[in-house]
Amino acid sequence: MERNRVNFKEKFSLFKDRWSPRIIAEMDDIQFKLVRLQGDFVWHDHADEDETFIVLEGEMFIDFLDGRVDLSAGEMMVIPKGVKHKPGAENECGVLLVEPRGVVNTGDAGGELTKDAVWI
Amino acid sequence: MERNRVNFKEKFSLFKDRWSPRIIAEMDDIQFKLVRLQGDFVWHDHADEDETFIVLEGEMFIDFLDGRVDLSAGEMMVIPKGVKHKPGAENECGVLLVEPRGVVNTGDAGGELTKDAVWI
Repeated sequence: MERNRVNFKEKFSLFKDRWSPRIIAEMDDIQFKLVRLQGDFVWHDHADEDETFIVLEGEMFIDFLDGRVDLSAGEMMVIPKGVKHKPGAENECGVLLVEPRGVVNTGDAGGELTKDAVWI
Repeated sequence: MERNRVNFKEKFSLFKDRWSPRIIAEMDDIQFKLVRLQGDFVWHDHADEDETFIVLEGEMFIDFLDGRVDLSAGEMMVIPKGVKHKPGAENECGVLLVEPRGVVNTGDAGGELTKDAVWI
């Protein structure tokens, strides 16, 4: 079972690019992904899936149509399906995403920030 | 959306008992629960559900039939369905559990350590 253990710092040390989630674990159809954020992402939603942000390092924010929510290390938030949001961070922030397999990072928005998540 | 934000330290401050998971968030059918561990739990498995441990504070271990895995803050592990395990911690440890709604903490073992998870 030792192989199932994941150390977040070790995994973060394996990549430097931002807005490009890496898969680190799977629980049935749910995937756990690490992502580095800095700057502003794009407005988007995920029509069919809730999405969870767990902040591991630093601070981020999520803009919603009715205002901004700030999140720091030690905080989490579930974004319900269909809710427009735009994540961002002033300084680099390390986040654990929890979401169903197959979620596309840019949701309905598409565009050049779209990345296929790969395992590390 | 502010109401969806969860701060782990704030939630941990609301309860002191051990081995009694508290639900803090839901993502579709997946629940996020905080639990305080100390001492040894019971051997058990969950026939139909994978279960995820994310260590937030301190250190814990999980005994498997073929050995022990140690987990510290900043580490996570997915326990596949049907795998016998016994969690424990020498000193108190704070853990975020991620598992499908309805999972019973003692799995197939039952007994007096069985607790219904409640929302905090």
